[in-house]
Amino acid sequence: TDSSRHVYRIASIPGDGIGIEVTEAALEVLKAAVQKSGKYTIEATHIPWGTAFYKETGSYLPDDFRSTLKSYDAILFGAVGAPDVPDHISLWELLLKMRGPMQLYANVRPIRCFTKPRLDAEPAHLDWLLVRENSEGEYSGHGGRSHVDQNWEVATDTNVYTRHGIRRIMKFAFEAASKRPRKHLTVVSKSNALRYGLVLWDEVAKETAKDFPDVTWDKELVDAMTIRMVQKPWTIDTVVGTNLHIDILSDLAAALAGSIGIAPSANLDPERQNPSLFEPVHGSAFDIMGKGIANPIGAIWAAANMLEWLGEQESADAILNAIAHVCNEKKVTADMGGDLNTKQAAAAICEQLLK
Amino acid sequence: TDSSRHVYRIASIPGDGIGIEVTEAALEVLKAAVQKSGKYTIEATHIPWGTAFYKETGSYLPDDFRSTLKSYDAILFGAVGAPDVPDHISLWELLLKMRGPMQLYANVRPIRCFTKPRLDAEPAHLDWLLVRENSEGEYSGHGGRSHVDQNWEVATDTNVYTRHGIRRIMKFAFEAASKRPRKHLTVVSKSNALRYGLVLWDEVAKETAKDFPDVTWDKELVDAMTIRMVQKPWTIDTVVGTNLHIDILSDLAAALAGSIGIAPSANLDPERQNPSLFEPVHGSAFDIMGKGIANPIGAIWAAANMLEWLGEQESADAILNAIAHVCNEKKVTADMGGDLNTKQAAAAICEQLLK
Ligand SMILES: CC(C)[C@H](C(=O)O)[C@@H](O)C(=O)O
Ligand SMILES: CC(C)[C@H](C(=O)O)[C@@H](O)C(=O)O
Repeated sequence: TDSSRHVYRIASIPGDGIGIEVTEAALEVLKAAVQKSGKYTIEATHIPWGTAFYKETGSYLPDDFRSTLKSYDAILFGAVGAPDVPDHISLWELLLKMRGPMQLYANVRPIRCFTKPRLDAEPAHLDWLLVRENSEGEYSGHGGRSHVDQNWEVATDTNVYTRHGIRRIMKFAFEAASKRPRKHLTVVSKSNALRYGLVLWDEVAKETAKDFPDVTWDKELVDAMTIRMVQKPWTIDTVVGTNLHIDILSDLAAALAGSIGIAPSANLDPERQNPSLFEPVHGSAFDIMGKGIANPIGAIWAAANMLEWLGEQESADAILNAIAHVCNEKKVTADMGGDLNTKQAAAAICEQLLK
Repeated sequence: TDSSRHVYRIASIPGDGIGIEVTEAALEVLKAAVQKSGKYTIEATHIPWGTAFYKETGSYLPDDFRSTLKSYDAILFGAVGAPDVPDHISLWELLLKMRGPMQLYANVRPIRCFTKPRLDAEPAHLDWLLVRENSEGEYSGHGGRSHVDQNWEVATDTNVYTRHGIRRIMKFAFEAASKRPRKHLTVVSKSNALRYGLVLWDEVAKETAKDFPDVTWDKELVDAMTIRMVQKPWTIDTVVGTNLHIDILSDLAAALAGSIGIAPSANLDPERQNPSLFEPVHGSAFDIMGKGIANPIGAIWAAANMLEWLGEQESADAILNAIAHVCNEKKVTADMGGDLNTKQAAAAICEQLLK
């Protein structure tokens, strides 16, 4: 290998369950991408954080996790969650502790339909870019329980929004929309019912829009947005919404487009002070763990997004084209109607990539 | 008319926009139901609350609205909202002020597919009963804004859950499930991210389940629930969720089943201390107001649910059958592929009812 090649240092955190299998598959595809390009190399370091680590050490993440991660260019993440640890513990102690506190505030979830939509629509109608506010709102972590176990027990969760936090995600979303052919942004909200944070959300959207005269935009309530996705998918291009709203809408979008198994999620720090984190949308799926049947495309697409973020657009495009090709040829796992296992499905993508 | 007939006193609040047209249509169908049954009569009193009333008097509801409404057996509601009043004002001052403070805590939204689903599924797969907690949670109204207009502005909305509030909606939902042929309840939550209120939600679900050994039940996260609705609709029967979660899922469900224009919403006080309120799910739709083209089925189905609640099951069933019949014959409005206007579509249902 040529020593003048740029080296990207990647932290690979497979985590739990099928996270381990799909991350392995994604690393295989990254190797093929390196081979094909010849311009850069990737040095992936395995980091064993996850439920096994927690059971050994008592924490999901070591105290100095941020400084450890700072030395990497990006993070490739699998999944977290295990049947014997409550999800609100495993997720808050690992995944959500990286997303929020590391200021990975822009969560980008592209939707593409590589097969047949589950709706009466053209595949091309399902080419969307969903942008999720990833650092505050419903996932602020504020709240508590009083009078536990009494009949008059009260529990609260407070959604915290800041003008700063909304402004930066709106800027990011308008910018993302301006780079797409249709240049249209839909701002999702629920300001008719949530009278404080989401009224501020709408106000900041309106202000930010002034700085992007080339982007057309509209507003949609989150409930009505589900109807629009089903009934008028062609009216949608880029979408921005709160942490919870896009959590819900991105799963719906992936299902309508064919399979949740292929959807990727990029957790970005647009200011590039922290390494960004790339993961499949699906979780650890313990029910199919170890069977070697998990769909690797979500993790592979996430790896492609990572290359794009690092500046390797050509490699990213090549991986996406290879994904489109294997989907078209049904060289995919059973959840998408194919008969390949995880390794074979990844190998099919590598093969197509190197053709 | 026979003086021995029972008289139901109904408060009719058409409200704004197409609310006025569809309520008129629903009242026509109620007249036909009375005629067909011969066992009861309905005395509907028009109450003019809505945006016009607000512009005249400065409030959406008079101060004594609760005592006014207490003298009725039920409320037939149209819609509220006008382009020149911010939605968070009109809705909180009228609709949400009746739902929450009147303790109409059980919001019941049936889904049926009278035409063709928008999915690759059988119409019979889309026979669901969605139960929405209607008095607390995300719609508690707690919150505020600090440092308004400053760069460091903070806005909060607090979701407030009580054990009492969760317990009563769970009891209601398990009971509702136990009365349906499949006796299955799905409890929707997001307790992996919302660590206080929704963890309590899950705990109370588990406790309540013990009292209903004849009901099978499972849990689903709200994001995953959208996938299940799209991919495995036949696994769903009765569903219970928070105020916001079912707000979103019920719009999605109605869209998947064919049309949001037919979906009804019953806002019930199961303790019968207050009159319950029946409305279509759709809003005031100012864009089509006055054109006479609004789909009246949502309001008519809501009226059928009202009769059911009042004990007139036979009439309720007859209206539902008439709705199914006109949908099948395409004697419906344009949004459902027919060519009737609002009045004609209602007349077709009356005609079928009286056959
Ligand atoms: C696992 C869970 C906490 C997570 C979320 O809600 O953000 C997941 O659903 C996602 O969409 O990434
Ligand atoms: C109009 C709005 C406040 C309302 C809600 O969010 O409850 C509506 O969407 C509904 O579903 O009844």
